[in-house]
This record gives sequence, C-alpha cells and structure tokens, in this order.
Amino acid sequence: MLPFIRSDLAQLTAYTPHPSSTDGKPIESVIDRLDTNESPYDLPRELKQKLAWIYQETIETNRYPDAGHAVLKAAIAEYINESANLTQGAIAPAQISVGNGSDELIRSLLIATCLGGEGSILVANPTFSMYGILAHTLGIPVVTVGRNSEFEIDWVAAQAAIETTDNPPIRVVFIVHPNSPTGNTLTNAELEWIRSLPEEILVVIDEAYFEFSQTSVVGELLQKPNWVVLRTFSKAFRLAALRVGYAIASPEITAVLEKVRLPYNLPSFSQAAAILALQQRDLLLQSISLVCAERTKLIQALSQYSALKVNYSAANFVYVQSNHPTQANKFLATLAQQIRSRGTTLRLLSGGLRITVGSPEENARTLARLESAVKSCESLS
Amino acid sequence: MLPFIRSDLAQLTAYTPHPSSTDGKPIESVIDRLDTNESPYDLPRELKQKLAWIYQETIETNRYPDAGHAVLKAAIAEYINESANLTQGAIAPAQISVGNGSDELIRSLLIATCLGGEGSILVANPTFSMYGILAHTLGIPVVTVGRNSEFEIDWVAAQAAIETTDNPPIRVVFIVHPNSPTGNTLTNAELEWIRSLPEEILVVIDEAYFEFSQTSVVGELLQKPNWVVLRTFSKAFRLAALRVGYAIASPEITAVLEKVRLPYNLPSFSQAAAILALQQRDLLLQSISLVCAERTKLIQALSQYSALKVNYSAANFVYVQSNHPTQANKFLATLAQQIRSRGTTLRLLSGGLRITVGSPEENARTLARLESAVKSCESLS
Repeated sequence: MLPFIRSDLAQLTAYTPHPSSTDGKPIESVIDRLDTNESPYDLPRELKQKLAWIYQETIETNRYPDAGHAVLKAAIAEYINESANLTQGAIAPAQISVGNGSDELIRSLLIATCLGGEGSILVANPTFSMYGILAHTLGIPVVTVGRNSEFEIDWVAAQAAIETTDNPPIRVVFIVHPNSPTGNTLTNAELEWIRSLPEEILVVIDEAYFEFSQTSVVGELLQKPNWVVLRTFSKAFRLAALRVGYAIASPEITAVLEKVRLPYNLPSFSQAAAILALQQRDLLLQSISLVCAERTKLIQALSQYSALKVNYSAANFVYVQSNHPTQANKFLATLAQQIRSRGTTLRLLSGGLRITVGSPEENARTLARLESAVKSCESLS
Repeated sequence: MLPFIRSDLAQLTAYTPHPSSTDGKPIESVIDRLDTNESPYDLPRELKQKLAWIYQETIETNRYPDAGHAVLKAAIAEYINESANLTQGAIAPAQISVGNGSDELIRSLLIATCLGGEGSILVANPTFSMYGILAHTLGIPVVTVGRNSEFEIDWVAAQAAIETTDNPPIRVVFIVHPNSPTGNTLTNAELEWIRSLPEEILVVIDEAYFEFSQTSVVGELLQKPNWVVLRTFSKAFRLAALRVGYAIASPEITAVLEKVRLPYNLPSFSQAAAILALQQRDLLLQSISLVCAERTKLIQALSQYSALKVNYSAANFVYVQSNHPTQANKFLATLAQQIRSRGTTLRLLSGGLRITVGSPEENARTLARLESAVKSCESLS
C-alpha cells in the first residue's frame, strides 16, 4: 500500500482495453476485430495522402497545438446544424467543446459537477461502462438502475432514485442514444421522462452512434439549459486512432468544460484530421448505408440460430443474448471464446455479446466461424 | 449560475493559452514566438516525410490506438537508461506511464492522491503554473511557499508547511528541475531536503527541460518509492504539436497511473512520432548544443542593460527581472508589450519576463526589438 494514494483507488480495477491491441501488436490468431464498434474502413487512400501532406506542409511539429480549436469548432457547428436541419447558426461554435475522445469530455463533466462529495451519477445498465469507471476513479458514487426486456430504461426506478438519493444527490444522468451495447434508440416514454428532469440535473446524451441511427436530441438543446450532447469522430468518421470527441451544450456549460479541460488537449494532427473529415463528410459518410445494410444481413443470419436472441439495432453493432435456460452467460462466454479462436474478437458482456458490424468480408467470415462455434457449444445444453 | 456545477469552480479562471495560437491563427504582428519554451526547430524534412509515410502505410485511422503503449514504453526506458548512464534494464517499461502531454500525468497524479479532501499539494512560487491550476479544477488545496533571491526553494518554510498543514495534509510536492520560469537547477541543499521528505509524501520532479540541463534525479529513483519524474517530448524532442509526456516511477505508482488514465489517451500518430523521435534521438538532440550556445549569447546581450537583472539558466529559456526600484512589474509589462508590438511574444509573469531561446535569427531580431523597446520604456524611470 502506498500511503499517498487514495484508499478507495486500491479496490478499483483498470478498464481493460480490447485485447486485440494490447501490447501494441495484434494477437496472431485474430483476423477480424469486431469488438470495439470501429468503422471497418480506413480513410480512403487519397485522404490519407492529403492528411499526410497537411502534416508535412502546414503543421509545425515543434509548436503547441491551437488551444482554442476555433476552426474545428466552426466546422463542427456547421455539420451539426446541417445534419439536424437546423437554421444556420442555430448551434454556434461557442456551444462546442472538443476533447481527446469523448472520454475526456465525460471526465470533464464529472469533474465539473460531482467532485468533492457534491454529487452522484445515474446510469441504466447495461450501458457504456466508461461513465461508471471514470466516476469511480474520481471517487464519485454511481447509482444504477436496470432496463426492461426491450432495454428501455427503468425510468420509474430512475425517478425514485433521483428523489431518494441525497448523500450526495444525483447531479448527472448519463444516457447513450442509441444505447451501447444494446443498440436501441430512446422511446417516446424515455424521452418524455428525460424532458421532465429538473434543471438541477445535468442530462448527458451520448450520441456516439448518431450517424448510424440518425436520431438526435440536438434540435431540443436550445431549449434545454441542462442538456449536453456528446458526439465522436471515432465511429462513422473513421478517426478512432486520432481521438476526437465533442460536446454540444449551452454557452454556459461549454465555458465550464473549457475551463476544466487540459489547455492543449488535442494534438495538431488530430485537429487537422477532424477538419478534413468534416470537409469530406459526404464521401466518408457514404459508408453508413453499407454498414446499415450489412447490419440487416447480420441480424437475419444470426436470427436463424434458436440458441440466440437477436435484437434490433440502430447503431453499427448487434447485441445478441442467449436463449439457454440455465447457463446463458456460460454459453455466450464459450461462444465468444470459440469464435475468437477461429479469428474474430467480439465483446462479451454480462448478459450479452456485442458484435460490431464489419465489412462484408469480415461479417461473412465471422458468420462462418459462428456457425461452427455454435455447434461446438451445443454440448452445454 | 448553473445548479449542477461545483460552486468552487465559478471563481476559477481558465488557463490562458499563449496568445499567438489562440483562435487557430497567429496574430499578424507576431513573427517570433518566444513565449512557450518550444524548440525553434521543426523535425527535419526527411523525418516529417518518414512520419507521414508511417501514417499512410502502417496506421489504420479507423482503429483505436494501442492502449498499452508497449513499444513506446520500451523505447523510453532504453533512452532513460542510456541518458542516465544506468545499466540496461535499470528502469523497466513497467516503470513508465505515457500521457497526453505531462499535463495529463499531472492531473492523474492529483486524482490518485488528493481528491475528496484527502490531500493538499505544495509548490514553491514562481514555478510552472499548471500544478496549481489543475489542482484547483479538482478542488484540491494548494499550499505555496516562496524562493530566495537565487530562486532556491524556501525549504524551511516548506518543511514547516508540511508539518503544520493538516486539513487536509500535504500529500504531494511538485518541483520543476530546472525550474520554470527561473531556469535554475536544484542545489545540494534543496536535494538534501527533498531526500529527507518522508515516504508518506509523493515527490514529483518535473524534468521537462532535462535535455538542456542534463541534470536528473532518475538515478536515485530506484531507491525512492515516493518519487515520480516527469519528462516530455514537447521541448528538446520538438513534438509539442503531438502532446506526449511520460512519468518514471516505481511499478506500484505506475500501476496506479495506468489505472487512473483514460484508456486510449494517446493518438496513434503521436505514439508513432515519439517512437520515431527516440529512434532518431542522436539527430534531434544535436540542436541542444546550439540552443545552449544561443542561450549564452542571449544572456550576455541582455546583461548589457542596466535596467535588467538577468539570471543564469540551465534550460531553453532565460528569466529576466527588472532593476526598477519602484515600478518593476510595470516596467516589465510595458517592455513585453513594446517587444510584442515589434514582433516577438515573450512570457510575462508576476516579477519577471521569460524569454525562450529561439533560433539565432529569432534571437537576433528579438534583441534588436528589445533594444528599441528598452529605450521607449525609459520614461518610466
């Protein structure tokens, strides 16, 4: 025990990054990585060339990055307004904060609201694990509620938790839309509940998969001083390697995020890549319809297995549960292990298996691996 | 007032990034940026080409970065051992943690030790402002002591503060070596005091300017379970745009830092750049002797002005004070403003002016601007 380390940290385990990249080299047997909801497509060759050129000709490696992100924020605001059919200027650059991935923005939001025993957060499981993990590293209590069989938030329990939790009170509710790992979008009932939350509670709506679902609450943001929408360039925009996320909120919340963040949080190359990706969005987002078509095919193929319960998805992944009457989790764990030994990594969670939609070739190989893996798992029944 | 934001954050002002980069474009009149202790030299053309090639040919933009940093950590450990004349393997990769600049590591250290009212930090002013700023964003109290006229830490006051501060106690002492903005290395008396600190206190020694001073405490680290050394690629290695810093500590402290950090904290391009910079360190660090020779020339030239008190420096900057008997700060502020209007940005601090050592051309232009600016400031006397 180190005497200068917070005692509550000792119990914490670190977030386990997806295994295919640990140690800096892919595990040999893994051919297809369908475990982290990345796009299957790198930037087109000519865009990588263009970005390499921008680096060589315009970025001074020895100089600190632009700490104000002005160009990037203006481009993001334009994209948001366009994609939400808002009047130009509806969302202004002063309502955008940019982070080293959404992770940094989640941490900034937690720091700004709940530190020092001032607040707890609420999440509805299963959901993105990072909210809880980052809260715990900061010593912030996490209140959890469940979801029904359609993965709708148990908002009756959530409302009760908000009304009864007081030491410290719930200050932030984190919602993914569509939810990860389950893929469902918010229902009208969930939206009504979120709209009913009092202005004392910050509502964070993480739209990491917006480009796949095309469902967003951004249009309501102007009326909601306590809402924050998170987005990312790591999924549909194909920039996971470069870590760029952003938050959309009121100018007041944005000013707080800017105050809390590290001043030079975003490398110049990452800023340049995000600006280029936005300029070329028509080209890059063409892959969305292909991914959505592949998702449909994947769901159809998976639905043939009586051992699996396959859920609809509005994102670039599919959440599969087990129909096994007594050993559902063991069945899924064995299945994931078998598929992995055959060459595809999937994300195993408590209660389900999340399969990222890959390229047509990745999906076909994975379905073939699944077919033989399901057979070898039948001994469990 | 936003009801969900921590009340103590409202009083905080954000860190002001250096003005030449705000808004993403240089201010027109500024030609020479000598305010942020960057290297004056970009990577050589052939290394930028090589890095651009590495990006195009080996980095999948759509995939998350290596979260384990294994290759980079091994290269860093090799460099540390080589530069400190330690036996190969003395510092192992398990003793390295890599951050999005040292800033992220400073924040992680603060989070791991002092959150939730468990600890305060101690700094000796003037020093790097980020320790205090990041502590304040986390609600962590900052205890300050002064320095003597040679900028030696007032370690008698520091020792007294450690013995008497108890609500919460001082858990971390932050020291820059050589210090910024003053440029001095630790004296034997300071080192003895640091060595005498009990193991309950974490000692962070920030060696951001190590390559210029070639003074380091790394050789003592193996005997010191409560010491952390910080380093950066932003200065001598010329990678400020890409944000790579690292911490050297015991495997136990390193494990805590790894637990606290964001899992994908370092973009793939930044990792590749740092690995390349280490491979090419003989080439890149050739500029050190040139910068040190320029520093000597700069100090000599500045010393001609009776209005200025010029200090020795072991880093890539020079700290200048005013000899003005009554209006020292006003003199320096006017001088900095005059020099800036002529084309060079310097860093104005309370009590001094910090001048980064630039290229020979930048330094010559700046000295010419200083000459005419000093004249126009003489009306103050």
